[in-house]
Amino acid sequence: MAKLARMLAAVARDRILRVEDVPEPQPGSGDALVAVRACGICGSDLHALQHASKMRDMFEATGQPSPFDPSRDYVMGHEYAVEIVELGPDTDGVPSKPGDLVVSMPIALGPTGVEPIGYSNRYGGGYAERMLVTAGMCLKVPTGLDARHAALTEPMAVGLHAVNKSRVKQGESALVLGCGPIGLAVIASLRAKGIEPIVAADYSPRRRALAAQLGAHEIVDPATEPAIDAWRRVDGGRHPLVVFEAVGVPGMLEAAMRDAPPQSRVLVVGVCMEHDRIHPMVGVVKELELLFAFGYDPLEFQGTLETIAEGRLDVDPLITGTVGVEGVPAAFDALADPEDQVKILVEPGGPSTPEPIAG
Amino acid sequence: MAKLARMLAAVARDRILRVEDVPEPQPGSGDALVAVRACGICGSDLHALQHASKMRDMFEATGQPSPFDPSRDYVMGHEYAVEIVELGPDTDGVPSKPGDLVVSMPIALGPTGVEPIGYSNRYGGGYAERMLVTAGMCLKVPTGLDARHAALTEPMAVGLHAVNKSRVKQGESALVLGCGPIGLAVIASLRAKGIEPIVAADYSPRRRALAAQLGAHEIVDPATEPAIDAWRRVDGGRHPLVVFEAVGVPGMLEAAMRDAPPQSRVLVVGVCMEHDRIHPMVGVVKELELLFAFGYDPLEFQGTLETIAEGRLDVDPLITGTVGVEGVPAAFDALADPEDQVKILVEPGGPSTPEPIAG
Repeated sequence: MAKLARMLAAVARDRILRVEDVPEPQPGSGDALVAVRACGICGSDLHALQHASKMRDMFEATGQPSPFDPSRDYVMGHEYAVEIVELGPDTDGVPSKPGDLVVSMPIALGPTGVEPIGYSNRYGGGYAERMLVTAGMCLKVPTGLDARHAALTEPMAVGLHAVNKSRVKQGESALVLGCGPIGLAVIASLRAKGIEPIVAADYSPRRRALAAQLGAHEIVDPATEPAIDAWRRVDGGRHPLVVFEAVGVPGMLEAAMRDAPPQSRVLVVGVCMEHDRIHPMVGVVKELELLFAFGYDPLEFQGTLETIAEGRLDVDPLITGTVGVEGVPAAFDALADPEDQVKILVEPGGPSTPEPIAG
Repeated sequence: MAKLARMLAAVARDRILRVEDVPEPQPGSGDALVAVRACGICGSDLHALQHASKMRDMFEATGQPSPFDPSRDYVMGHEYAVEIVELGPDTDGVPSKPGDLVVSMPIALGPTGVEPIGYSNRYGGGYAERMLVTAGMCLKVPTGLDARHAALTEPMAVGLHAVNKSRVKQGESALVLGCGPIGLAVIASLRAKGIEPIVAADYSPRRRALAAQLGAHEIVDPATEPAIDAWRRVDGGRHPLVVFEAVGVPGMLEAAMRDAPPQSRVLVVGVCMEHDRIHPMVGVVKELELLFAFGYDPLEFQGTLETIAEGRLDVDPLITGTVGVEGVPAAFDALADPEDQVKILVEPGGPSTPEPIAG
């Protein structure tokens, strides 16, 4: 594969995405230069673009000063399946070789420490033709699994991690608020774990249909029936409840706490960038547990890749669109309408505006 | 003991406490008429008086409509040690007999269901000469333990429950925010569990001194050093942290979430009656667990009584004042100043204004 001196990338800077012709990144010590085959657009990226300084605050909230400066150029995209083009220096012994289709956790071990790929001025993500990853972190995509499905490893791992973090177990029931990609990933993991019933709520008919396809036992439109009522109707309060808050807008947490039966757990996986108001007394009187989940661990990531490859997790319904790098800004617009798209994959060389893929 | 037709009680109604001469309650089926020997004044009662309608909301938040109407007369006081005066009808076989000093969980099984003693228009609490309890729920105070110390069973059980609920274990460290009676009860239970270090924060020198006496390894005045800095200084971040929020005013939760290291647990035991603002993103990025604790279970209550009786839990330092029924309104005022008092016991026949007891 010929090495390009320049490449197309959807560059973010000051809340605007611009498709630009930029220099191809040069692999440093431990890096691999890779060609993007498919990269999912994540809801967090839509948030991040609008609330870039909050995104920085978010990283700093962990106590680690973030090297990420959203007023300077950065390329997002952290749900990627990529092909190795060239291994950089100091990569002897890594199992990957040029031509391999790989995925990795979006973390780079850079010269100044760990950086989140896609939220870094140094390590751009997959909304580009090429990018850098840490060679030693690459996992080879099992034979037979294509790039489109492999690219779903990352968001599905988020769902698995949320389910693990919730400590939900057989004999308990689940209510999933919000059936965007993360809510859907949660539903798939709950189903794989044998949780029953799983009740899923979303205003979008399309997303509700996907929720049913991925394993929800009951779907509900909160405009016609409160989600908690649907759970009561289906479960009859027979099983302890774990609520998964996968919407991430102000007010959802307070509503979940108000609706949850005593002794419930509320797992928050939607990233709400705004301040939010809660009523701690409600939590106290009902002895709720509010658990927050973020990301996944390496074993969860690897396990998710294997589960997808083995066909035990059917991610196909989630993939609703494809677009080339030049169409990333239009894809961001399309994702604002939940009826239109769920997961759009950026595929370099793909259509210049988002095109549907039948799930 | 002669039965009084009328009695003195501190009656709450519409945010005001009035000491009144009222009819003595008549024991119904399953009730025991008891004489109050000592009843601790709880911080929740101070809140409840000012926010009586919120207290009602609080009970209703559990999903059970509360029979409690704060615009009608009620007598508070749910931390009592009492002497059995007379067993009512349908109490055959209960182990208690007249003359016994007993404690009980402040729950009455009344004709219309379970009622919280002290927050009920039917079952008044211990800010009175006499009250009713459910005979079958009484636990005999072990010989040698006096009423003053036995009355501390209830608040100490709240501390034990909060510690149990937090799942804190040896090898973890604790930061206790607020050293009122509940914070102090938490500290005593943490110490009994072998948690180290326990860092305790309060603005009041007296309460800090009590925290040290009850087992805190380090005490800190948040006016001179942020509590989390004191924990870092003492622990060096070597042990996972569990934060106990025992202040219960708006803003504490957000601050605790901001300060807590990633993967920490924050146990909320202070009852904040107000709405509060949090930043869910901080919880998500750090994967915090927010656990809310309320009350205790029967085994925790009984175990606490035994632990106090055996001398393994020294509650003596907590008892800072005594007052007769007629002095309850003045005692409520005194408790507004944390330097003045920690736990005031209402003791019928006691002084007409709060008097200190050397801890």
